[in-house]
Amino acid sequence: MTKYVYLFKEGKASMKNLLGGKGANLAEMTSLGMPVPQGFTVTTEACNDYYAKKKVISPEIIAQIDEALAVTEKAAGKKFGDPNDPFLVSVRSGARASMPGMMDTILNLGLNDVSVKGLAKLTNNPRFAYDSYRRFIQMFADVVMEIEKANFEHLLETMKHKKGVELDTELDANDLEVLVQQFLKKYEELKGEPFPQDPKVQLIEAITAVFRSWDNPRANTYRRLNNIPYEWGTAVNVQGMVFGNMGEDSGTGVAFTRNPSDGTKELYGEYLFNAQGEDVVAGIRTPKPISELKSDNPKLYDQFVDISGKLEAHYRDMQDMEFTIERGKLYMLQTRNGKRTAQAALKIAIDLVEEGVLTEQEAVLKVEPAQLDSLLHPQFNPESLKSAKVITTGLNASPGAATGRVAFTADRAREMKAKDGLPVVLVRQETSPEDIEGMIVASGILTSRGGMTSHAAVVARGMGRCCVAGAGAVHVDEKSKEFEVNGEIFKEGDWISLDGSTGKVYGQKVETQDATVSGDFAKLMAWADKYRALDVRANADNPRDAKVAYNYGAQGIGLCRTEHMFFEADRIMAVREMIVSKTVQERERALAKLLPMQREDFIGLYKEMKGYAVTIRYLDPPLHEFVPTEKDDIEALAKDMGLSYEELQTTIDELHETNPMLGHRGVRLSITYPEIAKMQTQAVIEAAIQVNKEGMHVVPEIMIPLVGEVKELQYVKQVVVETADRIIKEAGVDLKYYVGTMIEIPRAALLAEEIAKEAEFFSFGTNDLTQMTFGFSRDDAGKFLGDYYEKKIFANDPFAHIDQLGVGKLMKMAVEDGKKTRPNIKLGICGEHGGDPISVEFCHNIGLSYVSCSPFRVPIARLAAAHANIKNPR
Amino acid sequence: MTKYVYLFKEGKASMKNLLGGKGANLAEMTSLGMPVPQGFTVTTEACNDYYAKKKVISPEIIAQIDEALAVTEKAAGKKFGDPNDPFLVSVRSGARASMPGMMDTILNLGLNDVSVKGLAKLTNNPRFAYDSYRRFIQMFADVVMEIEKANFEHLLETMKHKKGVELDTELDANDLEVLVQQFLKKYEELKGEPFPQDPKVQLIEAITAVFRSWDNPRANTYRRLNNIPYEWGTAVNVQGMVFGNMGEDSGTGVAFTRNPSDGTKELYGEYLFNAQGEDVVAGIRTPKPISELKSDNPKLYDQFVDISGKLEAHYRDMQDMEFTIERGKLYMLQTRNGKRTAQAALKIAIDLVEEGVLTEQEAVLKVEPAQLDSLLHPQFNPESLKSAKVITTGLNASPGAATGRVAFTADRAREMKAKDGLPVVLVRQETSPEDIEGMIVASGILTSRGGMTSHAAVVARGMGRCCVAGAGAVHVDEKSKEFEVNGEIFKEGDWISLDGSTGKVYGQKVETQDATVSGDFAKLMAWADKYRALDVRANADNPRDAKVAYNYGAQGIGLCRTEHMFFEADRIMAVREMIVSKTVQERERALAKLLPMQREDFIGLYKEMKGYAVTIRYLDPPLHEFVPTEKDDIEALAKDMGLSYEELQTTIDELHETNPMLGHRGVRLSITYPEIAKMQTQAVIEAAIQVNKEGMHVVPEIMIPLVGEVKELQYVKQVVVETADRIIKEAGVDLKYYVGTMIEIPRAALLAEEIAKEAEFFSFGTNDLTQMTFGFSRDDAGKFLGDYYEKKIFANDPFAHIDQLGVGKLMKMAVEDGKKTRPNIKLGICGEHGGDPISVEFCHNIGLSYVSCSPFRVPIARLAAAHANIKNPR
Repeated sequence: MTKYVYLFKEGKASMKNLLGGKGANLAEMTSLGMPVPQGFTVTTEACNDYYAKKKVISPEIIAQIDEALAVTEKAAGKKFGDPNDPFLVSVRSGARASMPGMMDTILNLGLNDVSVKGLAKLTNNPRFAYDSYRRFIQMFADVVMEIEKANFEHLLETMKHKKGVELDTELDANDLEVLVQQFLKKYEELKGEPFPQDPKVQLIEAITAVFRSWDNPRANTYRRLNNIPYEWGTAVNVQGMVFGNMGEDSGTGVAFTRNPSDGTKELYGEYLFNAQGEDVVAGIRTPKPISELKSDNPKLYDQFVDISGKLEAHYRDMQDMEFTIERGKLYMLQTRNGKRTAQAALKIAIDLVEEGVLTEQEAVLKVEPAQLDSLLHPQFNPESLKSAKVITTGLNASPGAATGRVAFTADRAREMKAKDGLPVVLVRQETSPEDIEGMIVASGILTSRGGMTSHAAVVARGMGRCCVAGAGAVHVDEKSKEFEVNGEIFKEGDWISLDGSTGKVYGQKVETQDATVSGDFAKLMAWADKYRALDVRANADNPRDAKVAYNYGAQGIGLCRTEHMFFEADRIMAVREMIVSKTVQERERALAKLLPMQREDFIGLYKEMKGYAVTIRYLDPPLHEFVPTEKDDIEALAKDMGLSYEELQTTIDELHETNPMLGHRGVRLSITYPEIAKMQTQAVIEAAIQVNKEGMHVVPEIMIPLVGEVKELQYVKQVVVETADRIIKEAGVDLKYYVGTMIEIPRAALLAEEIAKEAEFFSFGTNDLTQMTFGFSRDDAGKFLGDYYEKKIFANDPFAHIDQLGVGKLMKMAVEDGKKTRPNIKLGICGEHGGDPISVEFCHNIGLSYVSCSPFRVPIARLAAAHANIKNPR
Repeated sequence: MTKYVYLFKEGKASMKNLLGGKGANLAEMTSLGMPVPQGFTVTTEACNDYYAKKKVISPEIIAQIDEALAVTEKAAGKKFGDPNDPFLVSVRSGARASMPGMMDTILNLGLNDVSVKGLAKLTNNPRFAYDSYRRFIQMFADVVMEIEKANFEHLLETMKHKKGVELDTELDANDLEVLVQQFLKKYEELKGEPFPQDPKVQLIEAITAVFRSWDNPRANTYRRLNNIPYEWGTAVNVQGMVFGNMGEDSGTGVAFTRNPSDGTKELYGEYLFNAQGEDVVAGIRTPKPISELKSDNPKLYDQFVDISGKLEAHYRDMQDMEFTIERGKLYMLQTRNGKRTAQAALKIAIDLVEEGVLTEQEAVLKVEPAQLDSLLHPQFNPESLKSAKVITTGLNASPGAATGRVAFTADRAREMKAKDGLPVVLVRQETSPEDIEGMIVASGILTSRGGMTSHAAVVARGMGRCCVAGAGAVHVDEKSKEFEVNGEIFKEGDWISLDGSTGKVYGQKVETQDATVSGDFAKLMAWADKYRALDVRANADNPRDAKVAYNYGAQGIGLCRTEHMFFEADRIMAVREMIVSKTVQERERALAKLLPMQREDFIGLYKEMKGYAVTIRYLDPPLHEFVPTEKDDIEALAKDMGLSYEELQTTIDELHETNPMLGHRGVRLSITYPEIAKMQTQAVIEAAIQVNKEGMHVVPEIMIPLVGEVKELQYVKQVVVETADRIIKEAGVDLKYYVGTMIEIPRAALLAEEIAKEAEFFSFGTNDLTQMTFGFSRDDAGKFLGDYYEKKIFANDPFAHIDQLGVGKLMKMAVEDGKKTRPNIKLGICGEHGGDPISVEFCHNIGLSYVSCSPFRVPIARLAAAHANIKNPR
């Protein structure tokens, strides 16, 4: 028979998966002999059983609850529902990981119309008894029965108003007794049945409500964003009540063993006398700092300090604790590893090493990689954010916070910024290469169209600029210099603010605070570097991004998208000339114009990377991305190029593709136009020769995209090698270079053994590999992914975390098969997954050599790589 | 040391891979003691070595050639280059399979300015000697040196004109001697060096030319179309010359042991006295029927009949032979299994069984499945085709030949056809569902846009209607009722003709002949059915197609694309209503209108299939395919639907997708709108109940498309099962049905073990699986596939034959993994590969249960399945 219910004294901290975090820690504190009101935990397995049985708690589990309750009653010397001395309990959810969005606590469960009188008599404190009962009714109605809290708060307010008082505590026992009657009546009115008087019924209803809350929409969203499996389930903790509201010798509070904002080693927290837990957070009465307890009650304070110290030492981490004082006696209600800011996380981890508590590896594991993001981008000032109003939400295309005045064109953005130095936010329907300089001066970019791979999103991520993309409710009218969103008009110069990490747009100025990278950061990253096996490179397309990447510790460039160089204003014309060329000669003439610019690009990159490897991906996007689509622009271009409008339009029409993602792009371009690969090779090699003459030692890595068949690579590699070797020979130098391929087409992964015969390295392009393995386009999937989450078909976004079962299977095949042919083949990843900690761990586990990600995610990847190697050393 | 050169007497028929077909058969005839001029074969491995060594014949091979030549000279009692009695040879290519497009024959090699005189003296026939030399010079110049033949023909014509004669044979020895001088001069003039006088040089040049011709564009195209690997290489046959042009007691001819047109058992062929091989085919002199040889030379005739009989008996197949008579002595120059029409192939195969020569299985293998195509579709009359002019070429979208008068709209097509019964060809930019009835009355369809998966192509293939699609040079002007192609205008009513098997469009009427299915066909197909293991089903979307499929022997429907039913004129409005619905209720209301129509569709299908399985695929295409794109049409629709233009335009805009192939379609639609799956289930099940009440026994197979994750299938299957079981229960009947999925997303193949937990059958959708595995869109790949063939990256079109290495690897994984979960899982294929013989063989080999193809390819698939099982029995 499965054991579904554990007494606190039967559990321990290591049983977190079964008992949830809260239950396991209550058990652990019990076994440490700390003052914990006794109780029991209904396991996560019971939750799964509840769902498997179509939302019914089985009689078997109920029997086990009854049994555990009997033991707990006996220990407390009280009986559930006893009219004279009722045993009261709290019911709390407790999943394996802390889960906001789930059910709140229910206190005082077990009270009813009869036992409230017993409690009043027993405690000789009718005010306390009725206050406890009215709180219980309201909580039960709210969280168990889903009756709006406001119904009861309204009654409370009316009573306070009637009595002419401001605080709940100013109501006396009679007032509260009346209020209880009003609450019970309201409950019956709204629910259609009386408030349950049987404590056992109350208990099972409350436990059911906890289980049910595991599947509510907020919990589901939180799980998806935090990659928590639905299958984990939640546990429920039933604990004997202790009362902080029994008078001035009672109280309740929360405290951290260290300051969770900055990590300072100090007891940090607050408490309230004569209150229950909810009062501390409700904000009606102002709690006192924990330090004042020292003077209020030195003995208790010392006891609490002692317990705090023991807990931190025991768990070897900063603790977040809840406690209650009942008539002068201290009870611990919860302890857990405390949440902390990134800055605090760094300081605490480092201090704990210095204190001799943690090893360096353990300290590294204490800092969540994803948390570093907030150190690397500006954030909103939390105070200033409180009064800000969200006007719409778009895609969280590039993280960070931005505030500034609206500008609708790149030119205006520059002018406005130049004039007074105040920040601007560039607002556009979508951005194009012409907007680059506006994007550089802007604090943030807001677009009304385009997805996570749109121009705005990709470029903004690359430069670490905050971006909210595809905010469909925003209607931009560039001519009248305004945008409308849900009926509200914003004009040029109006302040707005963007949160690129959530996609929220605020309709006013919100103060931001700059990214802060302290010495702790460097220290912890040094440890991370010491313990990781994966190299970390960056995706960078220009010297500006490369410099950021280098400063953030990138050990090379894993992906330079050469086409981004093509988009820049001074080149796009030559690119377009190349595209509309009708003969090889015309095309070569246009390419010749691009050659010196590409060469300079590469020289810049090589120099910034100071000898680290630079992987250069050859032209990838379909050519139509480079040509204009609007009539006016086409006319202008035709004029510039000496073509008739019709000629140019025909060429543009011919470039149209039904499914551009699956069209004439990547290596396919080099096969049709080998002269492009020739020009790019010339630029790569000549730049390397020049830089090496200046004393560096660059070994370029030439990467051919979108290969699905070894003969494609063979063909282009031959063009590359012939060109490169000729130039090297003519220059009379020694230059090593590599030619490799991206693995981003399923067929390439399936035939990796063949492809490795030509490829000197593989770099997994997991964006495209995910699109093709799933058969959906990232640009279009937004339409149905919402349904997929809601219907629990996908637990999370396969573009955020590598799909280990499908895409990952292909990757593993490719790694194994590639090594069969070329045992030392260099293996990397350059899709956006390269900056996702979970995916980095996967890459470590399947044996890649490096990950490559956007410059601003390099530290995250370094730390994630360290985590992976500490957990599963190579 | 590898043996690269074999004397004829060292080889045998089974060495075809090494010696090529011609070489192996010359060796076989030699070993049979037949009169074959001796010689040797340079192997296919030598050809591969030539390419491996960057187009150089290695000294080792040259040494082996020298050696073989010496042996051959010795046997002939002559010496190469002997001024008095020169040994002359022919040089012919000979690949493993017969390969038009490769190098022609070179005769008389070994002659030079000196030996021609010796030959004249020795034969006492200067005319013969000079005639031989001038032929050799011209052939050598043409095929070895790639000098235009016309240069020499012009000199010959001038000479004939000067002499006032018409035939070459009327020129005398002197004329020819002069002509030889002119030829030599012309050669030197054009080539910049004198004609090679050293016979060894001539020989090596000629062998090199044969090797080189293996890689010429025509050969490459032929190989791709006939799936012949480039790696096979060609052999070269060097054979002692015998002369049919030594006078009236000499001659040359070709003959078949049976009539290659209709299969009649009779010696069939023709010959010419005093001629060399080329004269027979050149058409200047009219050859005599072979039967006349009987009276011309009864002894020789009897000898030839005897040899023919022996060869056919030996090879157990109809033979195609070449022979030469030199001064009254018969020599055999070649024998091979003769090419024949489909009709002849059937008759010969059946006759050979009746004659006790072949077993039924062997006879089945003698008929090429692809050849049956010509029996199932109308073909052009070859005579009428001779004078037809190709005006442009499009995609060969649906096979067969069609001729008719141009109509530009479906309505006009019907009117024109109704008026006089004469055939029409529907010419449109692209077709849409509204054109269906025009397509039904038309003999053929020509479109200027759209690929192999366009509406026109798919629908035409389904109905077996000839279609040329995407003929980009055709500019349709519907309003002025004309189209322009390369400057030529065709108006409504003008005759054009289409060849749907080649994509050619002819600018006039070309007579067609109907498909002819004889009794032989039925007999052979019965044998095929007896020996195959794979079932053959058809892809059919309506009762009309289902009937054709049933009559062609389909054992069920493997794919009914329900959306094709949605396109029909009376339904499209309800479909559009469903699409623009904003709520589930609105959508259900529109679906309720479609329900009775769908139910009738299925009743019709079930009835036509008479109890065979019918696999119904649920709605698959993205919804925007159903809505209009032109402003006028949108306005009309908006009016019909009681919407404003803007509302409808907004809805349509929202449906737009960047990559529709990878968009909101297939199972994704059913997840967003489960009510569609509900309606379709109701129609499928109610139709089955009704038909079964009438005494049939239908077991519907419900197929969910585009599944990539088991939870997708789980979700939709639950909707299906709940709906179906409720209806079955309410009807109080017993009805079995299956729910399965297509495997067309790479991830589905990778996770087949999981997916088989829900899927009761798999059907490989190899069209989409190919697109996603390769990462290219069939609609767009046309732009670059030409480059891929030209640069030998792809040997052939992966949409024509399953890519066994990549897509096939996924299929094999899915078969193996699916069986792990569900050992008896039914496995089929419903992509267009299901009708391709090579792919059918692959499907047999990996253990599928059935293939499904378009109705008109069912016989081809049946025969291909028999071939597969005879070659590799299950």
